[in-house]
Amino acid sequence: MKTLDSKNFSVPGYKAWGIHCGIKKTDKKDLAVIVSDRDASMAGVFTKNRVKAPSVVIGTAKVRSGKGRIIVANSGCANACTGKQGHLDARETAEIVANEFGTKPDLVYVASTGVIGETLPIPKIRTGVATAAGLLSPTGWGQAAEAIMTTDIYPKIAVVQEEIGGKTITLAGIAKGSGMIHPDMATMLCFIVTDALVAAPMLRKMLTSSVGRSFNVITVDGDTSTNDMVLCMANGAAGNKRVAPGTKDFKKLQACLDAVTRSLAMQVVKDGEGATKFVEITVRGAKNPVEARHAASAVAKSSLVKTALFGEDPNWGRIMAVLGSCGVDMDEARTDISFGKSRLVERGVSMGKHAEKEAAAALKQREVHIGIDLHKGKGESTIWTCDLSTEYVKINAAYRS
Amino acid sequence: MKTLDSKNFSVPGYKAWGIHCGIKKTDKKDLAVIVSDRDASMAGVFTKNRVKAPSVVIGTAKVRSGKGRIIVANSGCANACTGKQGHLDARETAEIVANEFGTKPDLVYVASTGVIGETLPIPKIRTGVATAAGLLSPTGWGQAAEAIMTTDIYPKIAVVQEEIGGKTITLAGIAKGSGMIHPDMATMLCFIVTDALVAAPMLRKMLTSSVGRSFNVITVDGDTSTNDMVLCMANGAAGNKRVAPGTKDFKKLQACLDAVTRSLAMQVVKDGEGATKFVEITVRGAKNPVEARHAASAVAKSSLVKTALFGEDPNWGRIMAVLGSCGVDMDEARTDISFGKSRLVERGVSMGKHAEKEAAAALKQREVHIGIDLHKGKGESTIWTCDLSTEYVKINAAYRS
Repeated sequence: MKTLDSKNFSVPGYKAWGIHCGIKKTDKKDLAVIVSDRDASMAGVFTKNRVKAPSVVIGTAKVRSGKGRIIVANSGCANACTGKQGHLDARETAEIVANEFGTKPDLVYVASTGVIGETLPIPKIRTGVATAAGLLSPTGWGQAAEAIMTTDIYPKIAVVQEEIGGKTITLAGIAKGSGMIHPDMATMLCFIVTDALVAAPMLRKMLTSSVGRSFNVITVDGDTSTNDMVLCMANGAAGNKRVAPGTKDFKKLQACLDAVTRSLAMQVVKDGEGATKFVEITVRGAKNPVEARHAASAVAKSSLVKTALFGEDPNWGRIMAVLGSCGVDMDEARTDISFGKSRLVERGVSMGKHAEKEAAAALKQREVHIGIDLHKGKGESTIWTCDLSTEYVKINAAYRS
Repeated sequence: MKTLDSKNFSVPGYKAWGIHCGIKKTDKKDLAVIVSDRDASMAGVFTKNRVKAPSVVIGTAKVRSGKGRIIVANSGCANACTGKQGHLDARETAEIVANEFGTKPDLVYVASTGVIGETLPIPKIRTGVATAAGLLSPTGWGQAAEAIMTTDIYPKIAVVQEEIGGKTITLAGIAKGSGMIHPDMATMLCFIVTDALVAAPMLRKMLTSSVGRSFNVITVDGDTSTNDMVLCMANGAAGNKRVAPGTKDFKKLQACLDAVTRSLAMQVVKDGEGATKFVEITVRGAKNPVEARHAASAVAKSSLVKTALFGEDPNWGRIMAVLGSCGVDMDEARTDISFGKSRLVERGVSMGKHAEKEAAAALKQREVHIGIDLHKGKGESTIWTCDLSTEYVKINAAYRS
């Protein structure tokens, strides 16, 4: 597998672009279009939130067909909690795009992100789609990635190449979202395209598995926004032999998908709203994997832990307090905590000033690992998150204004 | 019932004081002593965290006797996660105090708050206890309240008087803690004294009931710190007829206790770390009271909701997103949301610009009420919390340094 430069690449059979059509109050890009030159296999993973944007409800229904051709995504307006009008507007957006490109609305997937409770400005989208259609380019991924950003600081792109079924295939993805999804609950969107030939049911399995080991490592079960969506299109333009389950080619393609989703998920965390650190939290020795995951999530969610990380303070007492209150089986006198490679707490007590100094040094890094061993069983889980800075509060206090 | 001036009052049969003995690195007070001139009925409510400070473990055991005479509390060091040494130190603190006042260690209750993982400086406490003993005063409550503060901005005191059993009884309390306990998990300590004559088992019931409607309204089930503790002493110095269950006097005393705990709980929230607003969140129409409580807690915990409140932005979409992801039975199309008296969202959609303006005006107040109706059942619950400001992050990033 080869990682390509994300600044300048193309994926055979696809074009993309992003423009400003007027949904955002600023002059930033707010409309992205990704088009395959032929019908493609399509798979999707959607938010578990009970409150779902029309784009999610409609997309979930469409993707059962396993087919798709175009993705149209807007930022600046989530079109969530907009009642019947929201559903009509999402459907109309798909129709506008289908008409523009001479295809069926069933093959057009709509995604939205931005403020909740406001409706889409359909006339602006109509004009915008026509403009974007005229600008579409095989190398327009950077523009598309920019057009789906909200509070993101930089666009997120990842692309790899691999030899599969005697051909070179390319797999690329763009994403938006910043910070750990909870407590942010900022929308996470990700669109992946490949020219490999894969049947839709297999693509769905591959995508679900890949998301479980990437985007789900940065979210907390169920704590997803109203609009989260990961879509994956495979149009077969590479001309490879159809990838069959259990083969070497299958494993190679899964590895490509995993590489792209993991890279994008890490980019999302690193772009955390106001984040200054990428934090990996691993809980070992929990009674079972579910409790491990729950404990790691509780630590990752704690504002007190996250502000201490921002302050580069190895304040392990806050971690211990969270572990004790989150409901998992634990015993203070058995619990170990480490920062980086340095063990700071053994069997519930500090290992002293020297260990504290080493932990403090580990916290000065841009990437921090917190290891917790509960010594209660074999459950293990890892979560990625970021610290909580003054900047986070500023961004989120000002977001709608 | 009469509310007394919290700046200058006494409770017959009690003395109190607070001093700086050197536990804190600054010159702020860090040691409080409260002494009854006779053995008193004692009741306590303690943290549910699995990680418990020695003061909590030992206090829980002692209070089974229903008896007490002295409370000694330090700030600056939580003496939590300190292993065997921590337990020895907590016991030694009780012995030092018992010797100083010529009573038994079993009648001395120790409470601690501050940094986790550091041990108590016993020599400083020994000297400090002797100093405090010489300064004890019937009106020393302000000093005691100051000496238990950590990141608190002001001391919290409440005092009421009532006619009970033919006598005037006084009931007073001091507390420390700031902000909503979760996500802060800052320690909440509260010490209540009264000269009323009450049997310990009844005092325990009254205290538990009162805490459920005050301090538990500002915490989230289980999300309590390692050191939380509410103690209540009743020494009978008023000479009233012993208060019997189910009587008018019982109701009057319960009302006094409720008034003091509610006042202190509200003071704790208003003193939230960096808080600019007191926020009351009421969820109605949930399937049952447990789901109502869970939904209210989820909204109260959300960093996104709390930063929007800081920004005075009625960003109801964030509330809807939290409700949808927190696991309670809800349906977007049935959900109403109001800010202050102004209904902003009806059946899942915004009521428009005028309603939004009214909601924005309600958010400019120092006290804000958020009302949510899920229209799913009769479950109802209220939680008190505060907003999340840039100041919160600054305080908590710097706390240990």
